[in-house]
Amino acid sequence: MPLIVQKFGGTSVASVDHIQRVAKRVARNLKAGNRVVVVVSAMSGETNRLDDLGMAVSERPLGREMDVLLASGEQVTIALLSMALTDLGYPGKSFLAHQIRIHTDSNHRRARIERIETGDLQTALAEGVVPVVAGFQGIDCAGNVTTLGRGGSDTTAVALAAALEADECQICTDVDGVYTADPRIVADARRLGLVTFEEMLELSSLGSKVLHPRSVEFAGRYEVPLRVMSTFEDGPGTLITMENETMEEPLVSGVAYARDEAKITMTGVPDVPGVASKIIGPVGREPIEVDMIVQNTGADGLTDLTFTVKREDYEKTLELLQPVTGQLGARDLSGDNRIAKVSVVGRGMRSHAGVAARFFDALAAENINIQMISTSEIKISVVVAERYLELAVRALHAEFGLSEAETESG
Amino acid sequence: MPLIVQKFGGTSVASVDHIQRVAKRVARNLKAGNRVVVVVSAMSGETNRLDDLGMAVSERPLGREMDVLLASGEQVTIALLSMALTDLGYPGKSFLAHQIRIHTDSNHRRARIERIETGDLQTALAEGVVPVVAGFQGIDCAGNVTTLGRGGSDTTAVALAAALEADECQICTDVDGVYTADPRIVADARRLGLVTFEEMLELSSLGSKVLHPRSVEFAGRYEVPLRVMSTFEDGPGTLITMENETMEEPLVSGVAYARDEAKITMTGVPDVPGVASKIIGPVGREPIEVDMIVQNTGADGLTDLTFTVKREDYEKTLELLQPVTGQLGARDLSGDNRIAKVSVVGRGMRSHAGVAARFFDALAAENINIQMISTSEIKISVVVAERYLELAVRALHAEFGLSEAETESG
Repeated sequence: MPLIVQKFGGTSVASVDHIQRVAKRVARNLKAGNRVVVVVSAMSGETNRLDDLGMAVSERPLGREMDVLLASGEQVTIALLSMALTDLGYPGKSFLAHQIRIHTDSNHRRARIERIETGDLQTALAEGVVPVVAGFQGIDCAGNVTTLGRGGSDTTAVALAAALEADECQICTDVDGVYTADPRIVADARRLGLVTFEEMLELSSLGSKVLHPRSVEFAGRYEVPLRVMSTFEDGPGTLITMENETMEEPLVSGVAYARDEAKITMTGVPDVPGVASKIIGPVGREPIEVDMIVQNTGADGLTDLTFTVKREDYEKTLELLQPVTGQLGARDLSGDNRIAKVSVVGRGMRSHAGVAARFFDALAAENINIQMISTSEIKISVVVAERYLELAVRALHAEFGLSEAETESG
Repeated sequence: MPLIVQKFGGTSVASVDHIQRVAKRVARNLKAGNRVVVVVSAMSGETNRLDDLGMAVSERPLGREMDVLLASGEQVTIALLSMALTDLGYPGKSFLAHQIRIHTDSNHRRARIERIETGDLQTALAEGVVPVVAGFQGIDCAGNVTTLGRGGSDTTAVALAAALEADECQICTDVDGVYTADPRIVADARRLGLVTFEEMLELSSLGSKVLHPRSVEFAGRYEVPLRVMSTFEDGPGTLITMENETMEEPLVSGVAYARDEAKITMTGVPDVPGVASKIIGPVGREPIEVDMIVQNTGADGLTDLTFTVKREDYEKTLELLQPVTGQLGARDLSGDNRIAKVSVVGRGMRSHAGVAARFFDALAAENINIQMISTSEIKISVVVAERYLELAVRALHAEFGLSEAETESG
């Protein structure tokens, strides 16, 4: 009997009515002959409400106590869903992290799962009980409550699927799969039937909000087949899986973007070893995520370095680098917080030259100036002025023929 | 250094502002040279909100899951209060029932505490940390979450005080102590400085809502000095303690009442052995609490039996007894759901005759008809028509001179 881990996010359990519908959804899975372990998030808005309470009580909320506070949200939904399942004739039983023993490290608010004990879940499954597990939470070696950070419930689901050697981990959400581009921007964007973990990782890092990158990484590492699908609509969703020889390989799987970006440029830096580390170092020591980094060296012994950060970190980053500019004897520090990143992702790129050329041509044809370029084996990203974002996404979607792709097979 | 267990109820932690004020209250206790273990309830209204959610999801909510659901309320307040204390310079640390190991039996929604492990709390105290413990919750031997039922946080506080051999258990609430009568009814009611566990047990069973009877019983059994006091106003409150030879013994300590009562009478029952058990038995097997039971036997070999229940159980009780009336060959089954119970409580009664006579005289002087009488060593209770409730309380308060009593010493 196949074993499925089925995860429902906050919008799927937003109300009593939603929870009863989720129970029916799980029941369909059981009726189809599967064994199911359910993972749920807190009701949508609840984690933010709790977070606000914590911030209102203290300007420097303790990580340990914030985790105790936040973990209460999932406790509510597992209890409610267990009751709703039982009412449908499928005995549900809730499990908190400390009851299963989802062991994590002690990094509060961004703990990492180290080990999951599966004994109690296996017993429940053997008894015909449906385990309903609190996502997002764990315990450390001292028994403190921890939480896994943004996207944590996805990570719980994937980690459980790996520990239980489940046949599939289904992430049920308010979209019915992964698309070739954001349908709000590209009207004829199409759902992908299949993507690889690698592609999904690039897509989710690039602002496709369907899955948190950590859960994709985890699924890839443990080879857990992952499926993104709609909670309340039927359909196969998108299967995220290992690369496989029989898979057709379209050149490009999708066009992704990240909107709220900013770039910082230091120009005229004397080009000596260690310059990049002196510039990026002070930023990396803060909780600021540095994304693209591009360095060009001119003939005059001076170099320019540009990198991107989230827009909310823009002012702080400039402030941090002000003293560094003087120390390095650089000519100038400048930035732009109205930029966006646009990328195409596809495992087919590896073996096909010319994708980059077509990419740049497509933007040139629309008179879109490219400010930065960065590439990986399966991705090309550029930075453009934010006002060109939609135009760039549509141009690339059309250039690579994504609306016509036979998406189910590829 | 004295050890105090200090408990705050839902109205004391109703908002962020309240929680910060409670933190200051605890800090005052620490500054005065005490070690303190704090116990808190959920924010007021929260337990009801969670209960409503459970009832909305399922018509037959599972006890196990309701406990998981309800226990999340205290999880929020312990985290918030720990942060608020830390901000004041007194490091707070939250403890859930499973972290301390508050062992209970497996009776969900009304579990009883069996054993508390104090190791982690002792360690925290030794490190100068203020433990902030979730009231109302426990775990059973299988690690399931349990809750203790109404007044459960008081019970947690008393049980912790007993386990830790604390010097005092302070129940901080929105009243500043136990009164000789309800001040909303008797304008010159006075705060009692001291009552015995026995008296407090009778007073709280009789609808004086200050403390839950279970916590008083527990405190009496383990001889934990218990103090009821105001959360936000200064004052000594009321100390509830063992009887003690140096204590003065006023005849009567207070007048209590219970409003929402109903009585059921079966008349003309053939007076043979086992009749009372046949009448009360079917009621006792339901979750219906039977309070006063009075039986009178006439000369004609027939007997009348009357008992009281909570008003909300009135209809159901009548229904249950309908078939029994026929089986016993009784003449009639009747009832009245507009009655109230009024009692005087005082350990002084034991050694003083005449209290009952003064009690009945006082009501007669007001033309209040007495429907039932029941007495114990330290209590006399009567049932009267509900409309006479306030009048009866005031008459008894005056009769026993309670407004003039030197309450601090007695």
